[in-house]
Amino acid sequence: MMGTIGIAVLGTGRMAHVYGPKINAHPGLRLEVVYNPRMSSAENAAARYGGRAMDDLGAVLGDPRVDAVVIATPTNTHLEYIDKAARAGKPIYCEKPLDHSLERVEQALTTLKTHPVPFMLGFNRRFDPDNLALRNAVQTGEIGRLTMVMSWSREPSPPPIGYVRASGGYFVDATIHDIDLLCWIAGEHPVEVQAAGSCMFDPEIGAQGDFDLTMTTLKMPSGALAHINNSRACSYGFDQRLEAFGDKGMVQTLNHRDDNLVRWNDRCTVARAPLRHFFLERYDQSFYNALDEFHAALTSGRAPSATAQDGQAALAIALACAKSAKTGQAVTPDYT
Amino acid sequence: MMGTIGIAVLGTGRMAHVYGPKINAHPGLRLEVVYNPRMSSAENAAARYGGRAMDDLGAVLGDPRVDAVVIATPTNTHLEYIDKAARAGKPIYCEKPLDHSLERVEQALTTLKTHPVPFMLGFNRRFDPDNLALRNAVQTGEIGRLTMVMSWSREPSPPPIGYVRASGGYFVDATIHDIDLLCWIAGEHPVEVQAAGSCMFDPEIGAQGDFDLTMTTLKMPSGALAHINNSRACSYGFDQRLEAFGDKGMVQTLNHRDDNLVRWNDRCTVARAPLRHFFLERYDQSFYNALDEFHAALTSGRAPSATAQDGQAALAIALACAKSAKTGQAVTPDYT
Amino acid sequence: MMGTIGIAVLGTGRMAHVYGPKINAHPGLRLEVVYNPRMSSAENAAARYGGRAMDDLGAVLGDPRVDAVVIATPTNTHLEYIDKAARAGKPIYCEKPLDHSLERVEQALTTLKTHPVPFMLGFNRRFDPDNLALRNAVQTGEIGRLTMVMSWSREPSPPPIGYVRASGGYFVDATIHDIDLLCWIAGEHPVEVQAAGSCMFDPEIGAQGDFDLTMTTLKMPSGALAHINNSRACSYGFDQRLEAFGDKGMVQTLNHRDDNLVRWNDRCTVARAPLRHFFLERYDQSFYNALDEFHAALTSGRAPSATAQDGQAALAIALACAKSAKTGQAVTPDYT
Amino acid sequence: MMGTIGIAVLGTGRMAHVYGPKINAHPGLRLEVVYNPRMSSAENAAARYGGRAMDDLGAVLGDPRVDAVVIATPTNTHLEYIDKAARAGKPIYCEKPLDHSLERVEQALTTLKTHPVPFMLGFNRRFDPDNLALRNAVQTGEIGRLTMVMSWSREPSPPPIGYVRASGGYFVDATIHDIDLLCWIAGEHPVEVQAAGSCMFDPEIGAQGDFDLTMTTLKMPSGALAHINNSRACSYGFDQRLEAFGDKGMVQTLNHRDDNLVRWNDRCTVARAPLRHFFLERYDQSFYNALDEFHAALTSGRAPSATAQDGQAALAIALACAKSAKTGQAVTPDYT
Repeated sequence: MMGTIGIAVLGTGRMAHVYGPKINAHPGLRLEVVYNPRMSSAENAAARYGGRAMDDLGAVLGDPRVDAVVIATPTNTHLEYIDKAARAGKPIYCEKPLDHSLERVEQALTTLKTHPVPFMLGFNRRFDPDNLALRNAVQTGEIGRLTMVMSWSREPSPPPIGYVRASGGYFVDATIHDIDLLCWIAGEHPVEVQAAGSCMFDPEIGAQGDFDLTMTTLKMPSGALAHINNSRACSYGFDQRLEAFGDKGMVQTLNHRDDNLVRWNDRCTVARAPLRHFFLERYDQSFYNALDEFHAALTSGRAPSATAQDGQAALAIALACAKSAKTGQAVTPDYT
Repeated sequence: MMGTIGIAVLGTGRMAHVYGPKINAHPGLRLEVVYNPRMSSAENAAARYGGRAMDDLGAVLGDPRVDAVVIATPTNTHLEYIDKAARAGKPIYCEKPLDHSLERVEQALTTLKTHPVPFMLGFNRRFDPDNLALRNAVQTGEIGRLTMVMSWSREPSPPPIGYVRASGGYFVDATIHDIDLLCWIAGEHPVEVQAAGSCMFDPEIGAQGDFDLTMTTLKMPSGALAHINNSRACSYGFDQRLEAFGDKGMVQTLNHRDDNLVRWNDRCTVARAPLRHFFLERYDQSFYNALDEFHAALTSGRAPSATAQDGQAALAIALACAKSAKTGQAVTPDYT
Repeated sequence: MMGTIGIAVLGTGRMAHVYGPKINAHPGLRLEVVYNPRMSSAENAAARYGGRAMDDLGAVLGDPRVDAVVIATPTNTHLEYIDKAARAGKPIYCEKPLDHSLERVEQALTTLKTHPVPFMLGFNRRFDPDNLALRNAVQTGEIGRLTMVMSWSREPSPPPIGYVRASGGYFVDATIHDIDLLCWIAGEHPVEVQAAGSCMFDPEIGAQGDFDLTMTTLKMPSGALAHINNSRACSYGFDQRLEAFGDKGMVQTLNHRDDNLVRWNDRCTVARAPLRHFFLERYDQSFYNALDEFHAALTSGRAPSATAQDGQAALAIALACAKSAKTGQAVTPDYT
Repeated sequence: MMGTIGIAVLGTGRMAHVYGPKINAHPGLRLEVVYNPRMSSAENAAARYGGRAMDDLGAVLGDPRVDAVVIATPTNTHLEYIDKAARAGKPIYCEKPLDHSLERVEQALTTLKTHPVPFMLGFNRRFDPDNLALRNAVQTGEIGRLTMVMSWSREPSPPPIGYVRASGGYFVDATIHDIDLLCWIAGEHPVEVQAAGSCMFDPEIGAQGDFDLTMTTLKMPSGALAHINNSRACSYGFDQRLEAFGDKGMVQTLNHRDDNLVRWNDRCTVARAPLRHFFLERYDQSFYNALDEFHAALTSGRAPSATAQDGQAALAIALACAKSAKTGQAVTPDYT
């Protein structure tokens, strides 16, 4: 694989808009094709950030200039694209989650076993420099033996109800990020989860049987305990924090800031501005770094670090959380 | 009740040593009697912080110079002293917890109904100025509608195993403080609790069937969710934090500091010293303020603000947590 | 000197009100006499915080129950009281400054040489725990060789113009505190000072030929440089900070806080309340600790740590600053 | 001026290495030529970051594809290049300082009056987002009337002695940045300066008659006072802070951080890593933004915001500081 790697981005929605410009910015990647079954959408996207517009998947996957695909389509189509790309022998970067159903994820894993192509799942938050630095502190023993790990993820405002409906539920849509992060930091998967949810911001979300406020506890095999809190609304911005507590110390990540200004006046002191608006701003670097990991894996021949199995485990845990929040019982995730 | 209020401190252990000097320091209180059934202990305590040493409870409760009692004896004797003091018509300040058994707490409540004397339970953390300020911010609507509330309580090092054995278990001994605080801040009691525990610091604690590391979730009637994390060990001191998150903002308490020094060097920057060692240092002011509340209630004729019913509710919740941690099921506290 | 030390407080103004209650609170001191040449003032003060009211200085100094005096009278009377107390053989604690004139301070030193009694000058800020901790960090070599040291002292609002008129000018009244602190931290006195002043808050202060805003640079014999900034007004409270920078690191003191609350909302984050109002609140502990040092010196027989010579040096430096601010020239303080 | 603007970078040293890649990164700029009178140096630079290597200045300035020049040569050659570029009608971006002599700067201003081309001086720190945000807070009246403004600039370690020798002295080499920033923030130039310097880190610097530690006070026409402290060494990294204090509040900039990690252990708490190494890292964005301002000025036809007159004023102030540090007298800068 000489020179740059030609990428076909499948899909032209929000996540495609995230990946397109970052592929352009990466010196080792080349945005070769923008694919959408509707040609006009493909053309609009190509006009916006380059690449050739295509609406014929077979042609895309048969194109020798396409070295790999980035799947950024609606979640319920991921499996189909994974299947076709794997059969065509194209390395795959797939936006998370793999799917909302464990059975269907199992199918994808089987496909990837039969048609082994390099595969990376877009757990972008692992590639955020601060999250990575916190994990390194844990893994290198800086805080001793890990005993507690906590994640805050509070979004600025509830998504449109249409998004919520197709999301697979709050645990599968959002908590899955925190689950993956905490398991990746801890280096283990929970033997049991407990979760509680309620609806305090948008009654329409509750009417869907979904939550907009949750708390989750993961019980790890080592005895370590993990806490996650999620909120679909947050008045001061996008609140993203981690805390890892071990027997020799604690490491925390602070929220990112747009500026380094501190204000003092007769109403308050040492005050700073509210937080960056949302995940596109906060995790901008992590999306680039995730693509860089994909590139590095392809050029070095090693497997990418966020695997389909990681996605399977995170989904199993998220579904267990959803079940626990409904039943009130601790649930053992189904990892089989 | 003119002039100062004469106090008999029952018990001469650790908590009596906390209250004795604070009674002396309070301009409206007078340390009248130090009681222990063993006279030598009473005399030692009296020599240390004043008052007359007595070993005859009947004489103490019949003494006209004793206006009220502070019960600072081992937990399993609280009921007996409450019973006798109430029958003698003496106002009671009782160290927490009331008892480890809900049935026996019920008995105490019955006694207090039959023999109504002013009664205050020593939930001292409510009287910590920062905890109070955080609650005021919540109650005055500064953060809008409360949606999440969190409490960290990590102790510097595990207590002696003898203490653990008599403690009623980690939830009843320690989490009960966080439970009371969070319910008091939220202004409601949970409809359901989930808890998880493990033993990661002292295997002897695990051998007792107890935990030294727990996480707890409380589900409030309003939909608000509460999180508590407790640890019997903490390398950087006594970590005590609260976070209240509402739809209009968030309020947090920071740990107290012994100094206001910040250090920069070639290894770290903006570094501060480890935290105050333990609860006697951290909550020193709150014990005084709790006695002040007791004094203010007695002199004004109103009921003290931390009641026996508060103690009953907190115990019911702590026992539900203990059950949840054993069974893995969400448990509804028994408030009857 | 057995038992408690009987103190006569000379003067009944603002500083007497600071010292009176602290003498009462100190277990080794006893407020014996409150003196004012006007009996009604003495009686009012005695009614307020105890001691016998007296208006006859000779009787006060001849009273065997008076073991020592605290001089808290107007600055222009300090010398007279030092002279009489020293001749009567009474140990002296004198509020700063000794006087506004170097010649008169010289007289006081001569008196104290002829009539050697223990003497302590009320440079209370040295006894603030944070200032002391910062100095210890410097003196123990934690930051290596000291190269810069800085002091911020910004008062909440300008004093009444009458106070300003009698103050000896901003440098002698206020900067003298920072000067003493920085020299005490550095362990040396400047060879040269530069100062600049202006009037930006209260034109009446400027009309007196005084400043309400100054910046001062001290050049130390070691080569270390010191900066002081002073303001007679500060919208967010009483701003008191120190920074010591050495070749191995930096130590800073943060402002004291009344609470440990942090606020987040849609306008600001990590915000804290404005600062404590003024010096009585901020330096409350330091006044007590200064009296404790006086007590410790008297009972141990060693000299108190803030001497008349320290006062002389600080005044010489403050007067040099005032001269520099008028002339624009660097001025060498007159230490003779 | 259609399409991108073709830039010739004059010089191939450290600053050329800063500007080259940033010109490449800017969508509106094009690195057309890399010039050095020694062809091999030009070729090396061109190989490193593009552009055509040239060693004939006349050919560069006559080349129609060169729309503007960036002067990044040694300071003592700036005037010659300004003169030739201006006569050739090429817009100029010149690295600071213009020159070390006020007389020669005067010549450059005359040249630019006779041959008026767009001219921008590389006071890059004005274009740092935090510095800009602080200035905006001041200029929009957020802190009321400005009364004090302070700048810290402490470099990680002394430069090679050869650099020091050619630097024009510490005030002209480094303080000039702080001077320009503070005047730009305050919107005025000092009527008088006081400065003090010493040599505490590298005796070779002192042997040159130069300083490695300075403190400077600027007295503004409005009465506002400014303080600058500079150090050629700093154990914890590159310390860059600003503080602006007005009658309604204060704004400060914090140092930039490479990560957002906070560490707690048994030795320290809330500790963060040391600071970014030096100005290339800390001000990386500001160099890009300065070029962007140059581009915006050229394409819009307005004058760039950091002018030759700004450079002249800053030099006059820096030279006054140097004189004050030698003589101990307050010095009025020579602005004529």
